[in-house]
Amino acid sequence: MAVVTHSLEQLCINSIRFLAIDAVEKAKSGHPGLPMGAAPMAFVLWDQFLKFNPKNPKWVDRDRFVLSAGHGCMLQYALLYLTGYDSVSLEEIKNFRQWGSKTPGHPENFETEGVEVTTGPLGQGVGNAVGLAIAEAHLGARFNKPGHTIVDHYTYVILGDGCNMEGIASEAASLAGHLKLGKLIMLYDSNSISIDGSTELAFTEDVGKRYEAYGWHVLHVADGNNDLDAIAKAIAAAKAVTDKPSLIVVTTTIGYGSPKKAGTAGVHGAALGTEEVAATRANLGWEYEPFVVPEAALARFRQAIEKGAKSEAEWNAKFAEYEKAYPQEAAEFKRIMAGELPPDWQKALEPVTEMEKSTRLLSEACLNALAGVLPEFLGGSADLAHSNMTYLKGIPDFQAGSYEGRNFRFGVREHGMGAILNGMALHGGLIPYGATFLVFADYMKAAIRLSALSQVRVIYVMTHDSIMLGEDGPTHQPIETLASLRATPNLLVYRPADAKETVASYIVAIEERKRPTLMAFTRQGVKNLAGTSVEGAQKGGYIVEDAPNPELILIATGSELSLAVKAAETLRSEGKAVRVVSLPCWERFNEQTAEYKESVLPAACKKRVAVEAGSSFGWHQYTGSEGAIVAIDTFGASAPGPVCYEKFGFTVENILSVCRNVLGA
Amino acid sequence: MAVVTHSLEQLCINSIRFLAIDAVEKAKSGHPGLPMGAAPMAFVLWDQFLKFNPKNPKWVDRDRFVLSAGHGCMLQYALLYLTGYDSVSLEEIKNFRQWGSKTPGHPENFETEGVEVTTGPLGQGVGNAVGLAIAEAHLGARFNKPGHTIVDHYTYVILGDGCNMEGIASEAASLAGHLKLGKLIMLYDSNSISIDGSTELAFTEDVGKRYEAYGWHVLHVADGNNDLDAIAKAIAAAKAVTDKPSLIVVTTTIGYGSPKKAGTAGVHGAALGTEEVAATRANLGWEYEPFVVPEAALARFRQAIEKGAKSEAEWNAKFAEYEKAYPQEAAEFKRIMAGELPPDWQKALEPVTEMEKSTRLLSEACLNALAGVLPEFLGGSADLAHSNMTYLKGIPDFQAGSYEGRNFRFGVREHGMGAILNGMALHGGLIPYGATFLVFADYMKAAIRLSALSQVRVIYVMTHDSIMLGEDGPTHQPIETLASLRATPNLLVYRPADAKETVASYIVAIEERKRPTLMAFTRQGVKNLAGTSVEGAQKGGYIVEDAPNPELILIATGSELSLAVKAAETLRSEGKAVRVVSLPCWERFNEQTAEYKESVLPAACKKRVAVEAGSSFGWHQYTGSEGAIVAIDTFGASAPGPVCYEKFGFTVENILSVCRNVLGA
Repeated sequence: MAVVTHSLEQLCINSIRFLAIDAVEKAKSGHPGLPMGAAPMAFVLWDQFLKFNPKNPKWVDRDRFVLSAGHGCMLQYALLYLTGYDSVSLEEIKNFRQWGSKTPGHPENFETEGVEVTTGPLGQGVGNAVGLAIAEAHLGARFNKPGHTIVDHYTYVILGDGCNMEGIASEAASLAGHLKLGKLIMLYDSNSISIDGSTELAFTEDVGKRYEAYGWHVLHVADGNNDLDAIAKAIAAAKAVTDKPSLIVVTTTIGYGSPKKAGTAGVHGAALGTEEVAATRANLGWEYEPFVVPEAALARFRQAIEKGAKSEAEWNAKFAEYEKAYPQEAAEFKRIMAGELPPDWQKALEPVTEMEKSTRLLSEACLNALAGVLPEFLGGSADLAHSNMTYLKGIPDFQAGSYEGRNFRFGVREHGMGAILNGMALHGGLIPYGATFLVFADYMKAAIRLSALSQVRVIYVMTHDSIMLGEDGPTHQPIETLASLRATPNLLVYRPADAKETVASYIVAIEERKRPTLMAFTRQGVKNLAGTSVEGAQKGGYIVEDAPNPELILIATGSELSLAVKAAETLRSEGKAVRVVSLPCWERFNEQTAEYKESVLPAACKKRVAVEAGSSFGWHQYTGSEGAIVAIDTFGASAPGPVCYEKFGFTVENILSVCRNVLGA
Repeated sequence: MAVVTHSLEQLCINSIRFLAIDAVEKAKSGHPGLPMGAAPMAFVLWDQFLKFNPKNPKWVDRDRFVLSAGHGCMLQYALLYLTGYDSVSLEEIKNFRQWGSKTPGHPENFETEGVEVTTGPLGQGVGNAVGLAIAEAHLGARFNKPGHTIVDHYTYVILGDGCNMEGIASEAASLAGHLKLGKLIMLYDSNSISIDGSTELAFTEDVGKRYEAYGWHVLHVADGNNDLDAIAKAIAAAKAVTDKPSLIVVTTTIGYGSPKKAGTAGVHGAALGTEEVAATRANLGWEYEPFVVPEAALARFRQAIEKGAKSEAEWNAKFAEYEKAYPQEAAEFKRIMAGELPPDWQKALEPVTEMEKSTRLLSEACLNALAGVLPEFLGGSADLAHSNMTYLKGIPDFQAGSYEGRNFRFGVREHGMGAILNGMALHGGLIPYGATFLVFADYMKAAIRLSALSQVRVIYVMTHDSIMLGEDGPTHQPIETLASLRATPNLLVYRPADAKETVASYIVAIEERKRPTLMAFTRQGVKNLAGTSVEGAQKGGYIVEDAPNPELILIATGSELSLAVKAAETLRSEGKAVRVVSLPCWERFNEQTAEYKESVLPAACKKRVAVEAGSSFGWHQYTGSEGAIVAIDTFGASAPGPVCYEKFGFTVENILSVCRNVLGA
């Protein structure tokens, strides 16, 4: 049985619980169990510790709160409403999980102000939080000055058993321990229930000990249902340890208060039902109608408005002092936090257009050029810096003790890296990039998808973009990878052919503020082509070589563009009117005006041949019913790159033969 | 400096090292560092412990060896050659990483006999090994009888720092600890070097402590370079602990023996170079030419042939006894290990064709029907059993203490689940399935890709296959997922429309022995359609409703097929000749004869409309230049499923309007 008290604190906690219960009940859909069990820790955190201003959710020095167990989003919506955010009204709570509401089924940063990151897919929030804490540490190291601490906030997470089972959370937590991110504090809602039932079914490890192995500070709260003091003391103790991230294992009861369903999987992901809602009301002594919050509780929560305004005002005063003492730094801080770019930043890339080498080396030149003009530009590789060519020369590593560094060592943790990049971008003030081999986009696709959904400017630098990587063989050779990424909404995929197109891809990636860009670069050298252009490549697709009234259009991307150009030469020498089109970014091209698209790929010219060293999947949209595609629809093979290239048909001869076939010649 | 001895053991160990050094040197590509450092542990394992018969790599009761650090494959190729496998000759070693060789850049089970699983993408081998150990435990529990132990083998793994950084390995190791898989023994080549340099850069956690937290038995070998006794004692101690998997942390020096490069990242992934190869020869006192193995060493290794033949003969005798005592069980064991199906197994599915409910419930009926007739059929869900509907009724859970169980509780570990399924399938004797929401294919894509590459019969049961899942919103609604899976080579993707098509997808999945099948099932109910058929659906695509000389073809999959049928009805009532085609499996359809494909989608009929509640990406191959696609190329939204369906255009009205547009009417 639940302990019935009518203390103001309990009233507040039950307000959270019943908003969740009632909203899920009304929607007949949702997850009441977590909000009911985690309400006490959330209340203590938001009431006593969390630094935020409900009336300015974007205040840059706010603490960041991440509900990694995103299915429990009614917890967060209740807190946003109760503490006075404008984004979540009582009406929105009544509209939980309905079309167009600000209260979708999982927290979405792009829908609801006050929600920092998009969670739901489990474990992602842990990675996001590590990214947020990294951003804080980096900006603090960069901008704080003796006597002037303008960046100083915590990242708090509530996560559950599900998050702790996911490998992505393991990766991120291991890195956070390594980096000694002392201002990252996670409250683990340990209720021993996941969707399928007791954690005894599948999850009996010692989670606290595992985090200790990662180098975390681990604390326990034995009674997370009722011992508010213990929760508060644990959070205070976590804050006091500054050289380790903290995990507070809070033992709770899922669905606390429900006489029949508390402590069972039945309360995890389904409405309680009319009868059990009534029983829970009785059990917790809750005498209010659905969606009614007692005035005293609301008043207590709404103190956050005054408190938040005061916090921000104090910070504003501090910042004003800082601005006086360090006007240049203050201006720079304001610029990057507003997400604005310095003037003429693209100029740094101009020299790269003249270079001639593999596109991964051209990418390296771009990264280093950008690092010089964009101090907010930073990132690294998942243990492939010297293959991905992502190291920023002359710039320190980001490590404990050198948080000002901008070279990240993510380790072999692709998925964790992706979620961390999302957190870094969502913090504000940074433009992060991450790198691995293109084929290992598969390891991190769930995080890339969330970059796209969350509308963040994250840059993915993927190298070894085709079978031309050679000897590593089919496990390392991307085939379907480009197709799977191109099919993803709101993600730009660039596969540049040479220096000019590589520069174009970086210009787009930096300028696109609301979507991620993924670039695919070659391992092997490429030649600069006469017909390519930075401007054309920014459009996503353009004519590289033309012929009046073309009877055939050759379309290619990346390293295969030069093959297309050579094949076109031969065909022209044979009197054929051939156009060559480069299509480095399908998404950008598809967004051009109908007129522009028609000018590049006129409907009247139906004889088209596409060439790309990857899957043919998706290419038919450009080649139509009468075209052909030179592609690979099997896995690759282990052999030197040029051998693979030839064996799989990436020769001028084979392209010519396909073209002649299409031409009926 | 290396310790130079000329003991026979050292001669053997150096034989491994120099085969690796010389092969990488000749290929000018590869990873010599791991074979040089891990040769001692590999020698001790293969010499003293591993149970195998080089002349019968498929002997069912062999120990399984997994090189999870697949980049070090020359270690494995050297061992296969030295111990006398026919698959890897000295010529093949000289052809390391060349086109058509049996010694590709990473170990591939489908290329090289003696290689159990395909590794290279890091961490996967750990998951595979857990699957292999699960298979052993299950088959042992099922077939062993008092006094008759016919299934009794170990699974050994060599893994490195890279594997231990990957989340997939964390997931699999956590589950292995939970399951108390005592016959799983991993040797962790702890050389503190990854590709980017020292593990000090990114990986400073206490790995042994982490595995202890998972419930593993953890041992240490302080000098893995020279202390062969310590290695042997540790393996023996690991074998002695039968209720926990064991991790032996073996401290080694990467590139051991190379004067300039040992202990550095320089030896990780590149040839040593002529000079350093010579220096290493001098340093290790190795006086043999490239690819020359001293006779004494070869003779010692080749004792494996006699030893292996004897081991297998002993087992054969044991099995003969078993066969006498338990003829039925023995016959069944032989059947499943040969991968043969019992007669008439499909009949069990017949009653399902009459049912009418969501395809996930139809899938549940198929799973349970199959479990009745195929005792080798087993699997489970990543903590979504009651959403994926994957529980086998009346059958115990696979747990420590009930390894005979066939219901798996994978926990929220999708990626680990995928790799485990691959290991289970590659063990032989099992047909495994795994389940999660379709959108979370992203979490496990790297493992699904390896199912396809490894040519294994793994069945992926993916439910909640469109925006019709509703309220969970865009984080849970697949859009590009089907496209990304369809683009993957050697993977069958089924999206059945009703009961008959669901049955067809299971028939295909069971019958396809060399490729995985992934099925996408609805959350919502579907009606049985008059025109669908089990036979047609097995072909991948077929005519559901026809009209003479069709002027328009409507093509759909899954739940949208019924919309297409309704739209066709209206169009026919308006005098239009409309054909409806169901395309539940693109891969199977594309493999049909040209004649069959033309009979379903005649080139002459260019007016085509495709309908699918997912990305349009890839559909143009069927709709051509003049068709249209009713699809979703943005993310979804949180709202009840039917609301999403309508808002995103999945209504008969909208389909009609698109059709009329295409018809120019």
